[in-house]
Parts: sequence; structure tokens; C-alpha cells
Amino acid sequence: MAGLSVRSVLVTGANRGIGLGLVQHFLRMPKPPQWIFAGCRDPKGQKELQNLASKHPNIIIIPLEVANPASIKAAAAKVGEHLGGSGLNLLINNAAILKVTTLDTETLEDMSEVYTTNTIGPLLMAQAFLPLLKKAAQGSPSSVLSCSKAAIVNISSSAGSITSLYIWDIFQATSYRCSKAALNMLSKCQSLAYKEHCILCVALHPGWVQTDMGSFPGQMPPTTVDESVQGILKVLSSLSEKETGAFLDWEGKVIPW
Amino acid sequence: MAGLSVRSVLVTGANRGIGLGLVQHFLRMPKPPQWIFAGCRDPKGQKELQNLASKHPNIIIIPLEVANPASIKAAAAKVGEHLGGSGLNLLINNAAILKVTTLDTETLEDMSEVYTTNTIGPLLMAQAFLPLLKKAAQGSPSSVLSCSKAAIVNISSSAGSITSLYIWDIFQATSYRCSKAALNMLSKCQSLAYKEHCILCVALHPGWVQTDMGSFPGQMPPTTVDESVQGILKVLSSLSEKETGAFLDWEGKVIPW
Ligand SMILES: NC(=O)c1ccc[n+]([C@@H]2O[C@H](COP(=O)([O-])OP(=O)(O)OC[C@H]3O[C@@H](n4cnc5c(N)ncnc54)[C@H](OP(=O)(O)O)[C@@H]3O)[C@@H](O)[C@H]2O)c1
Ligand SMILES: NC(=O)c1ccc[n+]([C@@H]2O[C@H](COP(=O)([O-])OP(=O)(O)OC[C@H]3O[C@@H](n4cnc5c(N)ncnc54)[C@H](OP(=O)(O)O)[C@@H]3O)[C@@H](O)[C@H]2O)c1
Repeated sequence: MAGLSVRSVLVTGANRGIGLGLVQHFLRMPKPPQWIFAGCRDPKGQKELQNLASKHPNIIIIPLEVANPASIKAAAAKVGEHLGGSGLNLLINNAAILKVTTLDTETLEDMSEVYTTNTIGPLLMAQAFLPLLKKAAQGSPSSVLSCSKAAIVNISSSAGSITSLYIWDIFQATSYRCSKAALNMLSKCQSLAYKEHCILCVALHPGWVQTDMGSFPGQMPPTTVDESVQGILKVLSSLSEKETGAFLDWEGKVIPW
Repeated sequence: MAGLSVRSVLVTGANRGIGLGLVQHFLRMPKPPQWIFAGCRDPKGQKELQNLASKHPNIIIIPLEVANPASIKAAAAKVGEHLGGSGLNLLINNAAILKVTTLDTETLEDMSEVYTTNTIGPLLMAQAFLPLLKKAAQGSPSSVLSCSKAAIVNISSSAGSITSLYIWDIFQATSYRCSKAALNMLSKCQSLAYKEHCILCVALHPGWVQTDMGSFPGQMPPTTVDESVQGILKVLSSLSEKETGAFLDWEGKVIPW
């Protein structure tokens, strides 16, 4: 991970699954971030994250419900306070929900809820943290785009690839697929809009991973959280200007839209 | 248009723009449909459509608000009554809204409203009209998929192509782009789920067209409603099994996702 050196990172949905794995791997880096902001919508019940934070003062748990604009604003203010005058290098929009539906059973309510969390949440997060990301970009000595300078990483899914419709036979989940296709569009829009601020933006598929979300009855996801997160961090360390706006998987392979 | 011969078609947002143009062109076909259901959320104020319907008894105006599940259900019941025992050949999900926003000015409310109308609406419409579409497919003598047999046409936009980000410099409208990328995903999902029922599904870009939506200050859209609709109907007449799930423009060209 020689290439990835961030002073500050924020991960949403950091209390379990891939989000928690990211926090753990950031801690284990040769030069861990000075601030690891762990966003979590219900900090009280989260023993593993609480435990980790009690041992590592660079972990700061931030109450954060990504479907709620007021919660996002409060989180941005809190993170800003901690950072004092410095910026946020890396925003990882990881939090998401999945409803295991078929096309026949989708409802307006499920479609809305999934989109609000998985697509609108990342949009609002980027808006709210933009001043801090800009500050990080301006404060960085490097002139090239990178995740060490300033970046937005949207954790997407190859289930959101319209080209491949990954594992359609196992789960249809149209609400989820639509939300991730839209998130990919958002990432591309962000890459264009935020390039002038030197902020790199990518959509990343973490693999099919052994988490609550990844587990379906009778199916064992092929990838562990550790493998996925190791892969993700390696990919992040390698990104530069030419990857902004791309859709990559945890092994760095380009996924077709 | 020799290839397109539908007994019944429903167009949403049929009171103006491309939707109204579609109704007018269906009327002018050598063999016009027996039923042209013109969905319209506020039938009272619509002089042009009312006028047309008063002259052509095969036009049936259907009150239809595509962001409202109850309105959709009522419309499906009404259309079913008119059709008696026969099915609906062609559902054209045309109604949509656009908010002229930048990435900075998007809000949760705008993102939600645009998604509900442009993406969830078409999903709920297809669910509600599925029994009638199936009936049309079963009642058709032809064994191959076609728009004359049974089809769902989602009017999308090349602004929803993640690959091309069509005219980003003129309008960002991330809420609209995300909703159309998601609509493209929906179309692909529908094509897979509804293939077994012999229902063809496509996403169609109508061109940049001279309508209320297509007009921006200082920009003249290159395509008239007539040209667009003529092109769309020609494309629809040519579709078969191999195009189901595709994203095409009004001239039949494949658009990358
Ligand atoms: N696992 C896979 O195979 C797989 C594959 C492709 C993509 N992904 C993507 O990878 C990311 C992480 O998934 P995962 O497998 O780690 O899922 P997970 O185990 O289900 O964890 C989801 C996390 O998101 C949080 N979250 C959900 N809604 C939230 C909200 N409104 N506000 C704040 N936090 C919220 C959850 O918090 P609570 O504990 O409070 O619910 C939890 O921390 C997601 O973006 C997912 O779509 C996963
Ligand atoms: N014009 C272009 O250049 C262009 C380019 C690409 C794609 N498109 C797509 O082409 C389609 C038609 O666009 P247009 O240019 O004809 O737009 P338009 O002139 O603005 O007309 C939009 C139509 O949709 C209806 N509508 C909106 N929200 C609705 C709702 N919730 N329920 C029912 N009806 C609703 C409107 O009804 P009201 O009169 O009641 O508002 C109107 O009939 C849209 O899907 C659009 O995204 C257009």
C-alpha cells in the first residue's frame, strides 16, 4: 500500500461488513491515517467498532444516517471540527441497503428507500463534504489526482452493470440494481464536476463478499471481507487522473457500465 | 411502417410533446390502432388532446399520474374494461420530468421526485399492465417477439448514457441522468424477466427534440417532434427478439450504456 497515504478518511456504514473491514485495514497500514472517521447510524449498539475506537484514538465514530440530510450536515460539521484547518482526503460512500425482491414484488416504497440510501445518500455526502475535500486537494503538494490527495469512492456493485446483469439468476433485486446503475452515473457526473477541484471520483465493486448483504440462502460468497478490503485499498493506491470516472472492481479490472 | 400493426397502444404523458406526437402519428398510420389510450395526468386542461379525441373515437383519454400507484391501478382497470377480453400490445412509458439543476444544487426532494416519475413510474406501469401485455402476447399468432405482439418501450435519453454523458456542458441535471441510467437498467431487467412471457422491452432515446423539455435558453434542439416520432415508429416496427433489452435511438442506432 506504498501508494496510499491519507491523513484523513471517512467511511460510511463502518459498523459492520466491508465498512468495518475498511476501518480495520486502515488501522493496519504502515502509516495509518491520523483521522479515521467511522460513520455509523446507530453508534450505541456497535460493540466491535466501539471496542476498536477505545483502543485506537485515531478512530472517531460519527453518528451518520446517509438517508437524512440533517444527519449528513451535522456529521460534516463534526468532522470539520476534528480536522481543524485541514481537509478530508478520502470519502468512502460504503453504506447501502439491499432488498431481496423480484421485478414482480418491487414497490414504490422499496424503490424509493433503496434509491435514497444507495444513490441520493452518496450525492448528499459529497455535497456536504465537498468543502473539506477541496481543502485537502488544495493543501496537497501533489499536482496529480489521487486518493491520497482528495477522492470520492462510491462503493457500487457489478449488479449495477447494465451490460452484465451480474448473477441475475440468483437475485433480481431491481431496486438495488437501479440504485447502483444510478450511483455509477452519479460517480461519472461527480468525476466531471469535481475534476476542476482536483478530486478523483470512482465507482468500485468490492467483489461478492461474505457479509450480511452478500449472503443468500444456499450461496457462499467467494470473497472474504479481508480479501475484498485488501484488494480495494490496493486499487485505491494505484488510481490517478486517468481512472477518475471509472467503474472498477476490487482487483482493478474495469467493469462495463 | 408496414412492420408495425398494433391493435392497442398506451402512451403516458400523451397531452403534449413527444407523447402527443406519438398519438398523432398512430392515428395517421395506414391501419391505425383500434385503441389508442392517451394517458394524461390532468385531462381537463388538455385542449389539443381533447380535440383529437372528439374527432377520433379510437383515442381514449385515460387519467394517469405515473408517480401514483393508485392512479396507475385505476388506469389499468379502465384500459382492461375497454379492451374487453383482448390484451394491450404496446405500452410506451413516455412521461417524464427534468429539473435543470447542477450537481451542487441537487436536493433529496428533486432527486426523489425525478426518480419516482422517470424510473419508478415505468416499473409500476409495467407491473400493472403486465396481465394485459401477457394477454396480447398469448393472443398473437406470431411466435417471434415484436412491438406488434407485445412490448414495453421506455422512453429514455442519451443523457442517461453513462458512457457518453451527452451534452454535459449544456446541462448537468444529475437527477435526470441518474433516473434515466436507472431506467435503462430497469429496461434490461424487464427484458430478462418478461422474455418468458414473449414481451419485448427496449429503452429508446427520442433524439434532442423541440418540446418543452428539450428547449433550453439559447439552444435550438435539432429534431422536430414529427421527425422524432416518425423515427421512433420506424424503429419500433423493426424490432425483434435480438433487440429486446437494447438501448436504441430514434434512428435505430445502439447507444452504449
Ligand atoms: N457484500 C457483497 O457481496 C457486496 C457486493 C457488491 C457490492 N456491495 C456493496 O458494498 C457496500 C457494503 O456492503 P456490505 O456487504 O458490507 O453490507 P452490510 O454488511 O449489509 O453493511 C451495510 C452497512 O451500511 C450501513 N447502512 C445501511 N443503510 C444506512 C443508512 N441509511 N445510513 C447509514 N448507514 C447505513 C449499515 O448500517 P446498520 O448496521 O445500521 O444497518 C451497515 O453498516 C455496499 O455499498 C454494498 O452495496 C457488497
Ligand atoms: N425533448 C427531448 O429533447 C428529449 C430528449 C431525450 C429524452 N426525452 C424523453 O422523451 C420523453 C418525452 O419528453 P418530452 O420532450 O415530450 O417532454 P415534455 O414536453 O416536457 O412532456 C412531458 C410529458 O410527461 C408528462 N408527465 C410528467 N410527469 C408526469 C406524471 N407524474 N404523470 C403523468 N404524466 C407526467 C407531462 O404531463 P403534464 O403536461 O401534466 O406535465 C407531459 O405530457 C421523456 O421521457 C423525456 O425524458 C426527451
